[in-house]
Amino acid sequence: MIAPGATIGILGGGQLGRMLAVSAAELGFDVHIFTPEEDSSAARVAARATVAAYEDEAALAAFAEAVDVVTFEFENVPARAAEILAASGKPVRPNPGALAVAQDRLIEKRRFHDLGIGTAPFAPVDDETSLAEALRRISAPAILKTRRLGYDGKGQVRILDAAVANAALDEIERAPAILEGMVSFAREISVVAARGVDGAFAAYDVCENTHRNGILDVTRAPANISASIAAQAIESAHQLMAALDYVGVLAVEYFVMPDGALLANEFAPRVHNSGHWTQDACACSQFEQHIRAVAGWPLGATARLADAEMTNLIGDDVVRWRDLAADPAVRLHLYGKREARLGRKMGHATRLIKS
Amino acid sequence: MIAPGATIGILGGGQLGRMLAVSAAELGFDVHIFTPEEDSSAARVAARATVAAYEDEAALAAFAEAVDVVTFEFENVPARAAEILAASGKPVRPNPGALAVAQDRLIEKRRFHDLGIGTAPFAPVDDETSLAEALRRISAPAILKTRRLGYDGKGQVRILDAAVANAALDEIERAPAILEGMVSFAREISVVAARGVDGAFAAYDVCENTHRNGILDVTRAPANISASIAAQAIESAHQLMAALDYVGVLAVEYFVMPDGALLANEFAPRVHNSGHWTQDACACSQFEQHIRAVAGWPLGATARLADAEMTNLIGDDVVRWRDLAADPAVRLHLYGKREARLGRKMGHATRLIKS
Repeated sequence: MIAPGATIGILGGGQLGRMLAVSAAELGFDVHIFTPEEDSSAARVAARATVAAYEDEAALAAFAEAVDVVTFEFENVPARAAEILAASGKPVRPNPGALAVAQDRLIEKRRFHDLGIGTAPFAPVDDETSLAEALRRISAPAILKTRRLGYDGKGQVRILDAAVANAALDEIERAPAILEGMVSFAREISVVAARGVDGAFAAYDVCENTHRNGILDVTRAPANISASIAAQAIESAHQLMAALDYVGVLAVEYFVMPDGALLANEFAPRVHNSGHWTQDACACSQFEQHIRAVAGWPLGATARLADAEMTNLIGDDVVRWRDLAADPAVRLHLYGKREARLGRKMGHATRLIKS
Repeated sequence: MIAPGATIGILGGGQLGRMLAVSAAELGFDVHIFTPEEDSSAARVAARATVAAYEDEAALAAFAEAVDVVTFEFENVPARAAEILAASGKPVRPNPGALAVAQDRLIEKRRFHDLGIGTAPFAPVDDETSLAEALRRISAPAILKTRRLGYDGKGQVRILDAAVANAALDEIERAPAILEGMVSFAREISVVAARGVDGAFAAYDVCENTHRNGILDVTRAPANISASIAAQAIESAHQLMAALDYVGVLAVEYFVMPDGALLANEFAPRVHNSGHWTQDACACSQFEQHIRAVAGWPLGATARLADAEMTNLIGDDVVRWRDLAADPAVRLHLYGKREARLGRKMGHATRLIKS
């Protein structure tokens, strides 16, 4: 167990880093943030910050030297950065291998497939030939996604008509890609779970997500699904985390099909927006849970104490803060970001509903 | 209402400042800590820190310039410091007048008296003559307390025998003092309550405190008292806060006498150790509540969602962190202090009991 007073190093300076830093502080840890961003949201609640590019090998080495364990709020760090950190001899949790799987949609989908976890049909696309081949197998409508660096709906193009598919290749700048069949799902759910250094596993209740403009809008906990679907979703997450020898919190997003079948969409090797409700509806939030896991502590209690509905405050939504602050049934969380840009996550509001 | 993104200035760098800073961050504020202490517990979770003496007028003026509202985690700042801050034109909440009352046990007791709030008998003591006079009125056993700068049992001497009372004057270095009658109370309780800029008032449930070596040991919520005693304790706190035109969280400590009479002991013009249980048993903790009040926001919900028992971890008690971290019924809070000195508050553990 890493003792209180030690320093948790976090790569990434956004709101997830900020909330992780606050939870780490509550357990008596110092936090050191590594981020390319000046005056970042997370650095303003951390004992120390290094502002440097993820490619700055000297800064990464100095950062690893200064901390007792390294973790991530942002998974898309260069593979080389994770290697340098691992070479430092400090524990890197989750391990760089798990990050590498999550960074590449093709490898990620194949990993689900290898574990027997269902997904939408998919095929690799590198050029017009492989796109044509993929469309023969999957057929339109389908989604062409870059293998790397997509999030919140970025790096994705829908292909509704196979005859004009090549335009989609141009839209993603001919980056290595994956074609995925579009599935008519009944709902989207996610599992937020943690795995400890000792292999202990704890999942929060499965929650249900709705998106707006490709960005998570509302999460409701619990999801409106049967106990057996929920158990299956949690079991698949457990399987994945064990296979990756994962340490920390991880989120798996699934589609629930009208017949009840579960298709894994993607996983995030970190705390996740769909787990924010745990801050207010559970004794131990996903943020404390992640800090506990990466520090080698026993996992905290994941029982849900109330029904919860978390709504993201995106861009100008944040002007509602006055009303939300006055609503006694709402817990307001704001990220301290300087500017409310379009599509930018500025905060969230969790409404608790006594069940 | 002071908008998110603004900076809350906090005088004091200890655990109360740390927990206030975390709550401010969750509402989207930046925090600027002013403390004489290098590498303080609070500064390590704050966006900015000024390390300077409370007598450093230039540093105080620059601090006030840099923040949007000034508040305190530590009430014993020099009166001159509060004046300089007030002269800056920035709101100072609570107001320096309220601090001045709390800083002087004689003025404090007289204020309770003027409001018709019962206290133990008391009399001013400046020298041997006034001590003899005070002992004639109050009679031993009694406690001689310095008027200023006492906390956690410091600056206090018991006088069990009036014949040797003058030795007590030497023990407190003949500082201006107050003699208080020792009362045989049945229990000690406290009210933690908040008052908004608009005069709105909200109290948490009355809690019960036990001390060890003059330092708070355990707080239980709710207190084992009748509803009418609880209502009276809350009403007296309300009266005091209104009389002081108080903004923020304040705690009043009372003795409950065997016949049910309430005697106010003292008040703290800040968040208080006996309110830590609100972090885990209420939606809005005393720390968020204080930030809400000083920022001019509506007060948050104070309903108690479970019975709670908060135990301080003092000095070496903190070695228990491993066991406490593993207990799913316990919420562990550690303050990030570098060294576990005798009598030093290192953290606390709150056990929730479903009622």
